[in-house]
Amino acid sequence: MTSYGYLGPAGTFSEAALISCLPEPDADLVPYATVPGALAAARSGEVDGALVPLENSVEGSVAQTLDELATGTPLVVIREAHQPVSFVLLARSGVTLADIRSVATHPHAEAQTRGWFAANLPQATVVPATSTAAAAAALADGSATWDAAVSAPIAAEVYGLAVLATEVGDNPAAETRFVLVTRPVAPQPATGSDKTSLVLYIGQDHPGALLEILTEFAVRGVNLTRIESRPTGGGIGDYLFSVDIEGHVDDARVGESLMGLRRVCADVRYLGSYPRVDGGRPLLRRGVSDPDYHDAQAWLTRVRDGRT
Amino acid sequence: MTSYGYLGPAGTFSEAALISCLPEPDADLVPYATVPGALAAARSGEVDGALVPLENSVEGSVAQTLDELATGTPLVVIREAHQPVSFVLLARSGVTLADIRSVATHPHAEAQTRGWFAANLPQATVVPATSTAAAAAALADGSATWDAAVSAPIAAEVYGLAVLATEVGDNPAAETRFVLVTRPVAPQPATGSDKTSLVLYIGQDHPGALLEILTEFAVRGVNLTRIESRPTGGGIGDYLFSVDIEGHVDDARVGESLMGLRRVCADVRYLGSYPRVDGGRPLLRRGVSDPDYHDAQAWLTRVRDGRT
Amino acid sequence: MTSYGYLGPAGTFSEAALISCLPEPDADLVPYATVPGALAAARSGEVDGALVPLENSVEGSVAQTLDELATGTPLVVIREAHQPVSFVLLARSGVTLADIRSVATHPHAEAQTRGWFAANLPQATVVPATSTAAAAAALADGSATWDAAVSAPIAAEVYGLAVLATEVGDNPAAETRFVLVTRPVAPQPATGSDKTSLVLYIGQDHPGALLEILTEFAVRGVNLTRIESRPTGGGIGDYLFSVDIEGHVDDARVGESLMGLRRVCADVRYLGSYPRVDGGRPLLRRGVSDPDYHDAQAWLTRVRDGRT
Amino acid sequence: MTSYGYLGPAGTFSEAALISCLPEPDADLVPYATVPGALAAARSGEVDGALVPLENSVEGSVAQTLDELATGTPLVVIREAHQPVSFVLLARSGVTLADIRSVATHPHAEAQTRGWFAANLPQATVVPATSTAAAAAALADGSATWDAAVSAPIAAEVYGLAVLATEVGDNPAAETRFVLVTRPVAPQPATGSDKTSLVLYIGQDHPGALLEILTEFAVRGVNLTRIESRPTGGGIGDYLFSVDIEGHVDDARVGESLMGLRRVCADVRYLGSYPRVDGGRPLLRRGVSDPDYHDAQAWLTRVRDGRT
Repeated sequence: MTSYGYLGPAGTFSEAALISCLPEPDADLVPYATVPGALAAARSGEVDGALVPLENSVEGSVAQTLDELATGTPLVVIREAHQPVSFVLLARSGVTLADIRSVATHPHAEAQTRGWFAANLPQATVVPATSTAAAAAALADGSATWDAAVSAPIAAEVYGLAVLATEVGDNPAAETRFVLVTRPVAPQPATGSDKTSLVLYIGQDHPGALLEILTEFAVRGVNLTRIESRPTGGGIGDYLFSVDIEGHVDDARVGESLMGLRRVCADVRYLGSYPRVDGGRPLLRRGVSDPDYHDAQAWLTRVRDGRT
Repeated sequence: MTSYGYLGPAGTFSEAALISCLPEPDADLVPYATVPGALAAARSGEVDGALVPLENSVEGSVAQTLDELATGTPLVVIREAHQPVSFVLLARSGVTLADIRSVATHPHAEAQTRGWFAANLPQATVVPATSTAAAAAALADGSATWDAAVSAPIAAEVYGLAVLATEVGDNPAAETRFVLVTRPVAPQPATGSDKTSLVLYIGQDHPGALLEILTEFAVRGVNLTRIESRPTGGGIGDYLFSVDIEGHVDDARVGESLMGLRRVCADVRYLGSYPRVDGGRPLLRRGVSDPDYHDAQAWLTRVRDGRT
Repeated sequence: MTSYGYLGPAGTFSEAALISCLPEPDADLVPYATVPGALAAARSGEVDGALVPLENSVEGSVAQTLDELATGTPLVVIREAHQPVSFVLLARSGVTLADIRSVATHPHAEAQTRGWFAANLPQATVVPATSTAAAAAALADGSATWDAAVSAPIAAEVYGLAVLATEVGDNPAAETRFVLVTRPVAPQPATGSDKTSLVLYIGQDHPGALLEILTEFAVRGVNLTRIESRPTGGGIGDYLFSVDIEGHVDDARVGESLMGLRRVCADVRYLGSYPRVDGGRPLLRRGVSDPDYHDAQAWLTRVRDGRT
Repeated sequence: MTSYGYLGPAGTFSEAALISCLPEPDADLVPYATVPGALAAARSGEVDGALVPLENSVEGSVAQTLDELATGTPLVVIREAHQPVSFVLLARSGVTLADIRSVATHPHAEAQTRGWFAANLPQATVVPATSTAAAAAALADGSATWDAAVSAPIAAEVYGLAVLATEVGDNPAAETRFVLVTRPVAPQPATGSDKTSLVLYIGQDHPGALLEILTEFAVRGVNLTRIESRPTGGGIGDYLFSVDIEGHVDDARVGESLMGLRRVCADVRYLGSYPRVDGGRPLLRRGVSDPDYHDAQAWLTRVRDGRT
């Protein structure tokens, strides 16, 4: 049976995100304690894939995930999920807001709900927990020394707790972008609304290195949706760029861009082509569609054969 | 008396970083509970400046800091600090490694020391704390229910605890980059080894927008040391780029680049020019030094005066 | 009294072009036998300026003029003229088409009227002359051994000859572009419809050299209207580019482009800013007008003063 | 039997150039009176090819040739020839320099030998001829009214005349570049020292159009050796670029550049790949050789197959 790992425990945003993009509805969902743990399980074949967070609209990119995917045994993204980060306040049945003296949650969640508590429960003290789910689980099993937990909405059902308040987060638009990765497979067919993720290594930093890379995309009409420079840890001046682009590796313009990057970069790691969750489609300028590429190839063949 | 805020409590990496780059040795150091809190204090004049984390080699960029600096009342960076993230294991005097059954620390630190504990103290359980310093402070004041704390080295002295182990971190090269910001001031004189931080807003996303921006730098020989795209929260397709470049706003090539960006971007926020901690100097290609700019200006003046 | 030289003799297209763009209506017009002769007279002060052909829509660019202006004592263009190359057939009074057995003209004119003669006077033989005016002059003074001359329309009046046919040229759209050059002077004020001529030397040819040069223009929104590469005669791999651009040296975007070129080229020779004969105006993209430059400079001054 | 047309008459620089690059030593050489005539003969099959002048180091590019090749039935270049333009003074046997009172030649040749005559035969008058060969031919057949001819060295042998002086030209480095064109054929195999000629049409002029074109070359490491903008005659703002590039249409980098241009230009006319007369070889940067292209293609195939 198919199984997918995710950053656990059960009842977190990760689990909700995985459910939202699950390729097979009846797959087994396997929680892992850490991002490296989940990815290792996917690499070893212990699970068929793993869902990990890539970037968060409040916290920024998840460097650990980027770095894990950029090195080691290759994995490729087959799905992305955008998970709203909307917190709820959970307690055992019968507990009311007025009863609450202490609240447990993960420090990340605490940072994102501080405003709500200042306004609504100023007297409550906050107890750090190892995850938002752990804070809820301890309420459920009776081991908690606190009165309530700030968790993902999914935790209410998982742990059988009452929801005292919703929209506890200070930023209602907050969301986390997750990716589901597997061992390398041929990409799913292009849908017209696709993204491709890449890691680009430049061997030696020099003015214009990034411009060179971007020109490989721009000359072929390929747009970027995310870029981030990261030190490789290989010493001063060694950088990598983590980028997402519009389009699918089977698109002619993307394929030619990738070959161009392969030639000018110290290394290129392909991290997969996959359907966009937001349904966005690239605005293609003249000359960069697949038919345009096909026509140009046919013309060159004629020229080379002396049939101009 | 001059005072600087920082992300507290005392005894964290933040405090150590602030001490390493303090403009005035006898300044007051004021801990704040949050990055927004420290920045608000700098904006209001409650303190003369604030030190906040900008990026971490393990965790990645600190989105909250980037976003706070990109919006609101302007602040400018006057110093940067690279603080090694090297953890130590602390306990009360007389306690030995063999005595330790539970260890408290911040979840971020837990994630970065997991390998060491698996290898060296596999039997110890981990208790989450609100900060690495809080874990140590509770040991010192006797309120702790745990036997040891994983903290920054500076916490040993601050809280009078014994160091049971050093280099407890799994990644010995881990470090955090902090910046010290103040209300806008004229930049310190250029040193020849400077960085300038910018936030660049593009009004409407389009293929080639990033290339346009980078060309403004490249044509004037200015190299980037960091780039990150971030959604502005202003709706689909609205991006900003957070970039650091080599050079000082008073350098002719940097000044002309900034003016070019000001003309093509929806907005440009200048975040300061400051000395580089790593001492690196730009490799300038022909034609982009200040004397080159000066000569070209003198020539243009002659041409415009009919004295060619 | 002001005097201008031109490529003579009197009665040629050059004279007509000079009259069309004469800065002072009553200036003396002085014919010279050659382009170098006319330019030498302007350089020495023998005349106040000289009109020379730069390019022809049938013959192409006039390499001799380009090369003369690119080297030696500097001269600058103050006017351009587009002279239609429309030939007429001239004879002495009383001569009719049917009488004509031989026709004299300059070989260039012969090449441009061959179709007309094949269709209209197939029996006529052609006698080469040193200029179209010389062919007419000999008719006028009685020294000609031919019956008619193919000349510029202006020659009819100059030499008192009858016009047997007009529009004798095979290409009715043919025209020659002339420039009026003087010793260096401050340019006339910008009109909004101006051109600037430049000679750009690249020290050593390398892939991308031309791209570098064009990027200096493109990044500042300056469009080219003509470009031609020419060997400098300085050995293999040494090139110069002769270019015309839209705009005036006093335009901020043109001035900054020129300074950029001055820094990256081995040498830049400014050949003048002057009103466009065609009245064309540049289509300026956002951010490259003089007010845009002024605003950006004011902003940079504020930033450098710490007043952001 | 193979036959090649050229710009006649016999005894001109054109004939010498054709002999220097003749593909078959025993081919028939057929003189034509004009460039369009020679090209028409090649197009119709009257001859197997035609040699025409393309550019001259003194006169510049030959616009008529460029325009003829840019339009009409396609032709492709199979050879280039660099012909030194070195003039000789010819006379009938027994005539000495002191005897010469009048000299005939083509006006182009007159312009290039004026300095020599001023220094060596100041008393001689110049008689215009329809070609340098015609001036010599009339001496040989006794019809000349002049004493000597300024001609190409080859004319001495062709017309059986004595050489009174060599190196009569004012510019000893003067040379003309000719091309031998045929109806479209598959190009000869690449030699490693090849050139490719192209005509690039841009549909509508806009700032950056030329930059776009050059970027297609630059991103693939292809260098230009010649560029010239020309109006197409199709109305204001419509331009074409006549360019020569280093490399062969069968080179991967050249082929991909051509396809890119085909997609972004209104039209591209391929004018042939042929061996360079000067033996120059391109300096290739990393990543643009044929093996580099082959490796990148193999890598992309693996990626698309899921075998990363």
